[in-house]
Amino acid sequence: MAKNKRGRSSFVLSSQPVITAWASVAGKKEGQGPLAHTFDITSQDPYFGQKTWEQAEKVMQQTALNTLLKKAALKEEDLDLVFSGDLLNQCIGSSFSLRNTGIPHLGLYGACSTMAESLLAASMAVDGGYADRVAALTSSHFASSERQYRFPLGYGGQRTPTAQWTVTGSGAALVSSQGKGPVITACTIGTVTDLGIKDANNMGAAMAPAAFTTIRQHFEDLGVGPEEYDLIVTGDLGQLGKELLLELARKDGLSLGGKLADCGTLVFDNTTQDVHAGGSGCGCSAITLCGYLLGELQKGKMKKLLFCGTGALLSPTSTQQGLPIPGVCHAVAIAQSSERQ
Amino acid sequence: MAKNKRGRSSFVLSSQPVITAWASVAGKKEGQGPLAHTFDITSQDPYFGQKTWEQAEKVMQQTALNTLLKKAALKEEDLDLVFSGDLLNQCIGSSFSLRNTGIPHLGLYGACSTMAESLLAASMAVDGGYADRVAALTSSHFASSERQYRFPLGYGGQRTPTAQWTVTGSGAALVSSQGKGPVITACTIGTVTDLGIKDANNMGAAMAPAAFTTIRQHFEDLGVGPEEYDLIVTGDLGQLGKELLLELARKDGLSLGGKLADCGTLVFDNTTQDVHAGGSGCGCSAITLCGYLLGELQKGKMKKLLFCGTGALLSPTSTQQGLPIPGVCHAVAIAQSSERQ
Repeated sequence: MAKNKRGRSSFVLSSQPVITAWASVAGKKEGQGPLAHTFDITSQDPYFGQKTWEQAEKVMQQTALNTLLKKAALKEEDLDLVFSGDLLNQCIGSSFSLRNTGIPHLGLYGACSTMAESLLAASMAVDGGYADRVAALTSSHFASSERQYRFPLGYGGQRTPTAQWTVTGSGAALVSSQGKGPVITACTIGTVTDLGIKDANNMGAAMAPAAFTTIRQHFEDLGVGPEEYDLIVTGDLGQLGKELLLELARKDGLSLGGKLADCGTLVFDNTTQDVHAGGSGCGCSAITLCGYLLGELQKGKMKKLLFCGTGALLSPTSTQQGLPIPGVCHAVAIAQSSERQ
Repeated sequence: MAKNKRGRSSFVLSSQPVITAWASVAGKKEGQGPLAHTFDITSQDPYFGQKTWEQAEKVMQQTALNTLLKKAALKEEDLDLVFSGDLLNQCIGSSFSLRNTGIPHLGLYGACSTMAESLLAASMAVDGGYADRVAALTSSHFASSERQYRFPLGYGGQRTPTAQWTVTGSGAALVSSQGKGPVITACTIGTVTDLGIKDANNMGAAMAPAAFTTIRQHFEDLGVGPEEYDLIVTGDLGQLGKELLLELARKDGLSLGGKLADCGTLVFDNTTQDVHAGGSGCGCSAITLCGYLLGELQKGKMKKLLFCGTGALLSPTSTQQGLPIPGVCHAVAIAQSSERQ
């Protein structure tokens, strides 16, 4: 078996790549939520100075990347590679943000799991010796997502109780072969899991089975349990998806109670911010990780975190054609650097 | 510098992962072209037995993957990982083809460069010891692409002379840590390059600068020149893009003449098949590689190939908003196994 492989889906990072810097850019609503103090930049302008929401998303990614480089005291030319993706058709947020920067780029599509997928890929690239400094980057924008996936904003459609609110935000993390910061110790690659949910306004339910599958697989492959982690945090299941995940785990004899959090319920205050089931979008787990979560690890308030990015792999076309919503979840184990072996 | 890194954009694969099997599925028009004899499966039905073209694309990917496994005498559970992506919004061809297979999956978006991007990522995963058997997979479909990027097929719009014909096809390659077959020796990761081309019917021109940038970078990083390869083959520049690439290279003092081929001009007979500037789409380079090109390496008719997947990173939204078309190109060096050091 390959030297770093554990089980079929997981691998360990023997060199333990370091997350030496991270940055987050958030929208106005996110800046009114409970994690406001953890974002590097909050914009009051949903257009981020641009003419379209898609271009706003491009600027969010550029701002997150530039803030990351500034915090790491690096220049664009010091970056070996960027793994990035977003929700926009053909991932134009990512392509346009890196246009003519000269930074080598590999594009990903993992829907809202992209922060975890890009971190996972970056850790492989660094640990394997193919790059020294790799950025993991993603974004989502409430307005560009709403009009692409659901209705024109001006239509003013009523949102269902199970609907989630797409986070306007971008997160970036720098994975390095050298330096100080939290370290990536192991990853589990998800499988496309589909239990037949067809309601594009209930993505938490569609993604919960994928989250359960990946978390269980992670424990099995690594020979650990929930006690290994201070927190197991899913991407954007929202309140309903989180409850479903707890139930799926309970039925399987796995107790996640007390250990489980979800970025979709952390990023907004569901009682005052009228976001229904919680936050969603690539930006949801991205700004929660690249602000609050990595900050807690750095401050020593947590020692080890299992970051489980969740994605709903639907498109408006598949929804209109009556197809179910497949989900995916990738898990990245991140530890305080003092844990570095 | 990281141990396998060469320059900023390139890396070598010290273990030289092996492409132990490959498979191609093609549509009717492709099956009437000059490479017809190299495809594993050719379908006369553009729907591949499905109700929609998007679902046809899903079936093409499934068929390519199943054919690959059959040729390699493997089962789904023997695969550690699939890297795949396609042109459909939110890459639903890839997500739906892997739904509930239980195969770990990392989704990519590299537009028509996906065959090269997935091979590159697969070679990293295998060489780094994170997986033993990884499939690189992609597809495109003329009908699903036309209606998504341009016009409804029933509209019967006149195609411009610079337009390319999206290949209906899917290609899959198995990258392994053990076994016999052509080996991957080095890769160069592309940058998002944009010289301002805005014509969505002239993608060859939009991608040629990216191809030039990556090929030149590859030579510089690895300290080699065109003489290192029997053939340098770009993804889907088509006739016009290929001529532009030759001109860009000539102006830079780099002679590619006699070494350069393009999958877009190989896959169709431009004089009889009315495809205007040639073939395009993820399937274009995928079925040309996973049929003709790997076959030539296996038969010993070529010793070393530089496979340069090219992608136009546009979306209908970016085109409608008047934005230019960024291009990207990733290069993968593939050699006869007798070249394995």
